[in-house]
Amino acid sequence: MEYLYGRNAVLEALRADRRHIQRLIVADGARGLEQHLELAQQRRLRVDIVPRHRLDQLTQDAHHQGVVAEASEFAYARLDDLLAAENPLLLVLDSLQDPQNFGTLLRTAQATAVSGVIIPAHRAVGVTPAVCNASAGAIEHLRVARETNLSRTLQSLQARNVWSYGLAVDAKQPYWQVDWQGAAALVVGSEGVGLSRLVREHCDALITIPMAADAVESLNAAVAGSLVLYEVFRQRSNA
Amino acid sequence: MEYLYGRNAVLEALRADRRHIQRLIVADGARGLEQHLELAQQRRLRVDIVPRHRLDQLTQDAHHQGVVAEASEFAYARLDDLLAAENPLLLVLDSLQDPQNFGTLLRTAQATAVSGVIIPAHRAVGVTPAVCNASAGAIEHLRVARETNLSRTLQSLQARNVWSYGLAVDAKQPYWQVDWQGAAALVVGSEGVGLSRLVREHCDALITIPMAADAVESLNAAVAGSLVLYEVFRQRSNA
Repeated sequence: MEYLYGRNAVLEALRADRRHIQRLIVADGARGLEQHLELAQQRRLRVDIVPRHRLDQLTQDAHHQGVVAEASEFAYARLDDLLAAENPLLLVLDSLQDPQNFGTLLRTAQATAVSGVIIPAHRAVGVTPAVCNASAGAIEHLRVARETNLSRTLQSLQARNVWSYGLAVDAKQPYWQVDWQGAAALVVGSEGVGLSRLVREHCDALITIPMAADAVESLNAAVAGSLVLYEVFRQRSNA
Repeated sequence: MEYLYGRNAVLEALRADRRHIQRLIVADGARGLEQHLELAQQRRLRVDIVPRHRLDQLTQDAHHQGVVAEASEFAYARLDDLLAAENPLLLVLDSLQDPQNFGTLLRTAQATAVSGVIIPAHRAVGVTPAVCNASAGAIEHLRVARETNLSRTLQSLQARNVWSYGLAVDAKQPYWQVDWQGAAALVVGSEGVGLSRLVREHCDALITIPMAADAVESLNAAVAGSLVLYEVFRQRSNA
């Protein structure tokens, strides 16, 4: 079990109803939790009203907004589950370290109907309560698979006709010049370091986000990934 | 004077050379600061090597990465300076509260050749060292004006043929269906609350970011603003 916190994260966990929720823990005097309490009542969940400092303790002083759910841990999907969709769009995250960026990108992924997210099983942030919070609960509606070897995963995607596009600052092809109608996987590297060498070599194509001539900085990793996801969504919406 | 911190923030302050920099303060044993030290030497700046905990104190335990610049405060521009560009693209931020989101959006603004950024003089985060850090130094190359009354600012923009487009979840027109060739101001509201009523009423048009049918969440405010800035940049690049 773990402690999910934050209004959106807890609300979406209740709505999605994929986790086992042991109980809802609400700060004494907290307001604006009508939806949470109504869903808890419908599900006949135990609700504990406790002093606010108790929630500070449970969440190690995170921004819990007065509500916590004691819930089963996030259930990861298998790669096959992610490929069940017709014309899948996958988001592959190579060693994204920052929970805030991870969560922000998951919000965009959910908004753009991504079929699933693939993260490395090691050396990267998993789906922790901090990530759930940063995703504003979007994660509860997404499928996430953990893979031990991303290069091998890209190979097996290729074998199933899912083309992988790696985002790289030194690539030539702008992301808006790709035809995104087919099954595709977008591969995003970690902020600063970018794609790891092996993952990069196993991408079918490398794409870039053009910048103004006098641009001095790279983009935030969550912004970069979001731009490409929206270009795919735009093209498929207009098709 | 204020204490700028973080490798990118300090490096870009040195490169842009717009602030008066009193001295560079470097943590004893910090590595990878060759560029910083070279620029400091060129500018004949004083460099103090101090124990790391001294930087923790100066920055109130921020993520300083071993380097701090004691520098003059950010110098705001006047609205007229922002309008000097041909065919200007302005970014208007209505009460963005989160320094991280603000900084992230500034990175995108710099990458997409935004002519200037307008923020409210009150009730919003200003260009603090935390924002400079979150912008990875992009702010040092941007013009930012503070205006006391954003509705009135939008009116005066209109009088100069700069059309303002407010981002609103309940608007009908997708941002990718707007013709962005002309002088324009993109108005982005705060996360959660969106545009304030008066600002919204003074926009020439409202635009929206479409989402998948089963989307449960809104987008991060910095992501939302970045998507529109990149659509403008894309259209103008391809023109």
